[in-house]
Amino acid sequence: MSKVLTQKQLKVGVIGVGVVGSSVIATLEKNRDIITARAGVEIIIKKACVRDISKPRACPIPLTDDIDEIINDDEIDVVVELMGGRELPYHIAKATLSKGKAFVTANKAMLAYHRYELAKLARTPIGFEASVCGGIPIINALKVGLSANEILAIRGILNGTSNYILTKMTQDGWDFTQALKKAQELGYAEADPSLDINGLDAAHKLSILASIAYGIDVRPEDMLIEGIEHIAPEDIEFAKEFGYCIKLLGIAKKHDSSIELRVHPTMIDEEKLLADVDGVMNAVSVVGDCAGESVYYGAGAGGNATASSVISDLVAIARLYSQNHRQDQANPMLGFITEQSYAIIPKQDITSRYYLRILADDKHGVLEKIAATLSHNKISISTFLQKPSTLDSSSSQNCAKVLLATHTTSEFAIQNAITGLQSLEVVRQKPVIIRIEDE
Amino acid sequence: MSKVLTQKQLKVGVIGVGVVGSSVIATLEKNRDIITARAGVEIIIKKACVRDISKPRACPIPLTDDIDEIINDDEIDVVVELMGGRELPYHIAKATLSKGKAFVTANKAMLAYHRYELAKLARTPIGFEASVCGGIPIINALKVGLSANEILAIRGILNGTSNYILTKMTQDGWDFTQALKKAQELGYAEADPSLDINGLDAAHKLSILASIAYGIDVRPEDMLIEGIEHIAPEDIEFAKEFGYCIKLLGIAKKHDSSIELRVHPTMIDEEKLLADVDGVMNAVSVVGDCAGESVYYGAGAGGNATASSVISDLVAIARLYSQNHRQDQANPMLGFITEQSYAIIPKQDITSRYYLRILADDKHGVLEKIAATLSHNKISISTFLQKPSTLDSSSSQNCAKVLLATHTTSEFAIQNAITGLQSLEVVRQKPVIIRIEDE
Repeated sequence: MSKVLTQKQLKVGVIGVGVVGSSVIATLEKNRDIITARAGVEIIIKKACVRDISKPRACPIPLTDDIDEIINDDEIDVVVELMGGRELPYHIAKATLSKGKAFVTANKAMLAYHRYELAKLARTPIGFEASVCGGIPIINALKVGLSANEILAIRGILNGTSNYILTKMTQDGWDFTQALKKAQELGYAEADPSLDINGLDAAHKLSILASIAYGIDVRPEDMLIEGIEHIAPEDIEFAKEFGYCIKLLGIAKKHDSSIELRVHPTMIDEEKLLADVDGVMNAVSVVGDCAGESVYYGAGAGGNATASSVISDLVAIARLYSQNHRQDQANPMLGFITEQSYAIIPKQDITSRYYLRILADDKHGVLEKIAATLSHNKISISTFLQKPSTLDSSSSQNCAKVLLATHTTSEFAIQNAITGLQSLEVVRQKPVIIRIEDE
Repeated sequence: MSKVLTQKQLKVGVIGVGVVGSSVIATLEKNRDIITARAGVEIIIKKACVRDISKPRACPIPLTDDIDEIINDDEIDVVVELMGGRELPYHIAKATLSKGKAFVTANKAMLAYHRYELAKLARTPIGFEASVCGGIPIINALKVGLSANEILAIRGILNGTSNYILTKMTQDGWDFTQALKKAQELGYAEADPSLDINGLDAAHKLSILASIAYGIDVRPEDMLIEGIEHIAPEDIEFAKEFGYCIKLLGIAKKHDSSIELRVHPTMIDEEKLLADVDGVMNAVSVVGDCAGESVYYGAGAGGNATASSVISDLVAIARLYSQNHRQDQANPMLGFITEQSYAIIPKQDITSRYYLRILADDKHGVLEKIAATLSHNKISISTFLQKPSTLDSSSSQNCAKVLLATHTTSEFAIQNAITGLQSLEVVRQKPVIIRIEDE
C-alpha cells in the first residue's frame, strides 16, 4: 500500500551522529521554515542512535544506543543511516525496508556491494544522494535529469582528498608525502588515508554511478583501480609540458554492448573543465547521446554538503508521501508547496562595483570634470586607465577614452552620475557601464 | 484522484514539431529501450499538432493541425507544448490541466509570466526542465537536489548566443557586430536576435530559477536588465588587464528578507569556473548555505539537448503514474525499473594511451633495450623525454629517468611491457604508468 502521511509531519530516525549526522540535525533546525515549505510537511527527527550514549553532547534530539529502538518505532517513517561500515548498515537497511519504512544513506561502501539487493527488496523509497560527491546532486541528475540519454561516458573527480594532494603537487610543486601530510593536518584525509589515495573510495562511487547510468551490478573488484601513491613531481612536470593535468578519475564508458570501468590517475587536457577542479572539490562530466556533455561541480565531502544531500532525499520522500489525491505534489511545479514571501529589491537600490567607459574630448581639465561628477555622486574610483587619443571619425576631432572601475555604489548613484557625465560638454556620448561581480 | 496508468504506456500529444519537437520524436524512437526501462512504461507519442499540415515531412507520428484534437483526446495522458509564443501556449496549458492531463513545456517566455497561475491550477504534474539551459537539469537540481538549502546566490550564463558573441570578442578580438553576424551565420542567433542580446531571454530564465529558489513571482520588468550591445573591444581589454572576463550573467541573491535580481554583462574573476564557459555553452553557479557552491554546465540550446530535458520530464511523469502500490517506483532506487544487461569489459582489454616513467642506469644502450621491449609488445611511442641523470641515493650510481607517452594500446600489452621492462638488468624499479585520456 502506498504510504500517505496522516499528520503533517515526516518522522525520521537517525543512526549515527558524527559530523554528517550533526549537520543534518542542525540544518533541519536552521532551515526549518524553508524546508517545510518545500516538503509540504515538517521533517522531524524523532530519535537518534549513537554508539556511546554516555558521551556528553549538545544534541537536541532524544538519543538511544539501541538501533532496534529506531527501526522498530512504528511512528518513524524514514531511517537515515550515517554510521559507516558495510555489513551492519546493510542489515539495518534490510530491517528498515522490511518494516515498510523508507531508507536514506550516505554509505557508498555498503552500496558498492549491496545496492541491488536493496533495490530488489524495496517497496518504499531509498535515498542515497549523499553517497556520491557530497553536496552535488549527481545521483538525481543522472537518474532524473538525463533519463532520456544513452550515457556514453562518465568521467569524475570523485575523491576530494586525492584531488587536494594532486592540486598541491601541481600548483605548489610539493611531493606526494608532503601533500598527504598537509591533507591529514587539515582533516581532509583520515589517519588511515588508504581508501582515499588507493582509488577504492572513488571506485565505490563509480560503481553506484555506473548502476544508474547502465543498470549494471558492478563491484570494485571488477574494475581497473590504481591510486595516486606513485605520482612523482616529474610526472606532474611531464604532464604540464605537454598540456596535461593529472587527476584521479573514475571513468565509465559505454561500448556497443559492454561497459568499461576504471579508476586511476589520468592525464587530461588542461583546457578541460575538469582540469580546473582544484583542492577538495569534486566534479563529474557526463556525456549523453542526446544532452551532450554536462558537468556537475561542488563540494564532495564535509558535514554540511553531505547533509544537504541527505535532507534533499528526505524532502523528496516527504513530497511523495504527502501527495494524497494531488500527484503534482510529489514534484511541486515550482519547488514550494506553501507560499513564500520576499520583497524584490528595487532596481535603484542594487549595489555593485562598476566599470565605466567614457568617450571625451582630449583636452586638459576633462579628467577633473569626470572625477568631480563621480565624487558629487559619492562614487569613488578604484582603477583608472586613459587610452591614447584617437581620431573621432564623426567630429574629426581627437578624443580620449577614459576607462575606470569604481568601488561599490548603488544603481541610483551610478545612473545619476551617468546623467551628470553625459551633460558635460566634454563628454561625447552616453558612458557605457559594466557591472563588476567580485566576491 | 491520483492517476495510475492502466496500460503499460504513457500516451503523449505534442504541439509544435520544429527543431525540438522533431528531436523529441527521434530520441524517443532511438533510445526507446533504455527510456522504457527507466520509465517503467513505454512513452508513446500518439499524435502531434503542426501549423501547416500540408507541408511534406518525414514524421512517423499521426499529425493534425487542430490543437483541440490533442487536448481533448481522452487517451492522451500528457501534452507537450513546443510551439513558442506566450498567450496561446498559456491557454493550451490551462486547457490541458483542466482535462486532468499532465503538461510539459520548454516555453520560458510563457512561464516567465504565467507560471504561478499554472502552479495554482495544477493537480497533475507540470514539467519544464527544458525551459532553462536546454540540456542541463538545473530545474531538477534546484527543486530536488538543493532543497535543504537557503539559496544565497545564483549566477548563470543563461543565454548561449550572447555567450558565443562575448567569447569571440574575448578570444579572437572581434567586435560586437562581427561576432553577431557570425552567430547568425552559424544559426545560433535568430534573424531578430534582440531577445538573446538584450538580456530578456536570460531574464525569462532567471525569473523561473528565482521562483524555485525563493518562491517569488517575479517578472522580467521587476529586474534590472541590460544587454551586451554596447560592449566594445576596449571593455574586453580592460577586463583582461585586471584579471576579469565579461559574461552576460543572470544574478539572483538573497538578502535578509528580500531578493536582488539582475541580468547584465558582468566582469567576473577570470579564475572562476564560469569564466571558462565558452561559446554557446551555458552554466549556472548556485550557492547554498548548506551545500556551498555547486556549478552545472552543459548545452543550453539545440534540438537534442532540449529534447533530453523534455523527455526527462516525461520519464518522471511515467514513473509517478506507473507507481501503483510501490512508492519506490516514483523514483526507482537505481534509475531503472526493468533490468539491463551489459558485459563489463575485462581489465586487460581496456585500451588507453599511457605515460611511463622508467628509472634506469645511465649508460649507453639503455634506451635501445627499453624501446625493444615496448616494440616487442607492439607498443609505439608518441612522446619521449629523458631527464638529466641524477645520483641514485640507494646505489650511489648515476641513473636516468626516461619519461614517455605511448600511442593507444591495451592493458594486456602495457602490463606485459612493464614486466618485460622490470626484468631488464638496466631498469632499477617497476616503471610507473599513468593513463592518458584525450578525446
